[in-house]
Amino acid sequence: MPSISVCLSPRLTNLQDFTNKIAVVVDILRATTTISAALESGAASVRPVETLEECNYWQSKGYLGAAERGGQKVDGFDYGNSPFDYLNKNISGKKIALTTTNGTKTIYAIKNADQIFMGAFVNISALTRVLLDKKKDIIIVCAGWNDEVNLEDTMFAGALIDHLMHSFNISDDPAILAHNLFDLGKGDMFHFLEKSSHVSRLLKLGLKKDIDFCLELDIFDQVSVLKNDEIMSYPHQVDV
Amino acid sequence: MPSISVCLSPRLTNLQDFTNKIAVVVDILRATTTISAALESGAASVRPVETLEECNYWQSKGYLGAAERGGQKVDGFDYGNSPFDYLNKNISGKKIALTTTNGTKTIYAIKNADQIFMGAFVNISALTRVLLDKKKDIIIVCAGWNDEVNLEDTMFAGALIDHLMHSFNISDDPAILAHNLFDLGKGDMFHFLEKSSHVSRLLKLGLKKDIDFCLELDIFDQVSVLKNDEIMSYPHQVDV
Repeated sequence: MPSISVCLSPRLTNLQDFTNKIAVVVDILRATTTISAALESGAASVRPVETLEECNYWQSKGYLGAAERGGQKVDGFDYGNSPFDYLNKNISGKKIALTTTNGTKTIYAIKNADQIFMGAFVNISALTRVLLDKKKDIIIVCAGWNDEVNLEDTMFAGALIDHLMHSFNISDDPAILAHNLFDLGKGDMFHFLEKSSHVSRLLKLGLKKDIDFCLELDIFDQVSVLKNDEIMSYPHQVDV
Repeated sequence: MPSISVCLSPRLTNLQDFTNKIAVVVDILRATTTISAALESGAASVRPVETLEECNYWQSKGYLGAAERGGQKVDGFDYGNSPFDYLNKNISGKKIALTTTNGTKTIYAIKNADQIFMGAFVNISALTRVLLDKKKDIIIVCAGWNDEVNLEDTMFAGALIDHLMHSFNISDDPAILAHNLFDLGKGDMFHFLEKSSHVSRLLKLGLKKDIDFCLELDIFDQVSVLKNDEIMSYPHQVDV
């Protein structure tokens, strides 16, 4: 049976060997949710970039530029990090360059993985089907907040483990911890996460609508994967 | 109200500012439990050292040398990292140099803290009384296993928060996470921790007796504090 383990912060990725394994990057509030929304809305790809300067560079090359810092859209860019920036917008076939506080740097912290998928509640079942099909060891990497462990990403790691645990060995303490946390909070995720630092931060910015969206289950059937430095939809069989 | 936060791995200590704060180091299985047992048994102090060479050096200066790697006592030293190595032994007034896989390096990862205490279930109530008296911000630092987050230290962080939460603000996500985990497992800690990596490791080494001891509550009234590079008993009022 393949194994599933969890890395609770990008700061801890260098304790892991990703060789021949699948990495699942999680930044529930909001990067990995927003990437799914953008690709579901028809964007061709999302290029994760680390700095505002890089984002500017790609914008000058014809990409849509999306930039967020501290929860807010950065001036001078087309979009921010809210899924609602992309839903029902005319972005069909467009390429997007995206830089966010935590999500993009997490992707770059992962070395030598066989494939890197993005994890979000909005498409957790579609991702589960792909991972069950692959039958490879998985490391879930939580983006956290400024390298600190956070509740919502840990909670998602637990939810994904819950979906996969009958076909995978839970192989480390962070995975056990994440699964217990999900089990405790799954009945009312918003209430459970209400006291977390990032939910408080977004609520203060008036973004409850975003949080609610990011905690919805399976509204998309799309799955996001990194390929040649850009995130795109993974071709997979849609269950009928 | 002062705050209480949690650092889940020594690798994450440099995200924290310990200035004017109290640090509580936790290595439940077994360093911080064993240190309490040694001091309760009359040892004058325990000097945490990082390498076997340093431990050897202090041994040559008249210290008792205690060394553990991978759960086992290292050949050539007087003691290992089991609390039973020290209980009811004639070590009154002795100084001990101790090096362990995880606990000692965690102490050295903490910079500029006002004071560094050791946390263990065996003396959690005595430590609680001291911390309530101090009324200062606290950061609980879990030793983990080879920098990886582990269940038992996170669980202790949650237990200490449970003791302190009416007089302290819970200030970060790892603290919320730890407290939830403790709440979930407190009814039967051994059962809850049975699948954790380090408990499995110690069980394979035949050390169930050690695990049981390390999970006992309040068998000592002693409190351990770092002073001039050595850990000693903190003078405090014993409740009558």
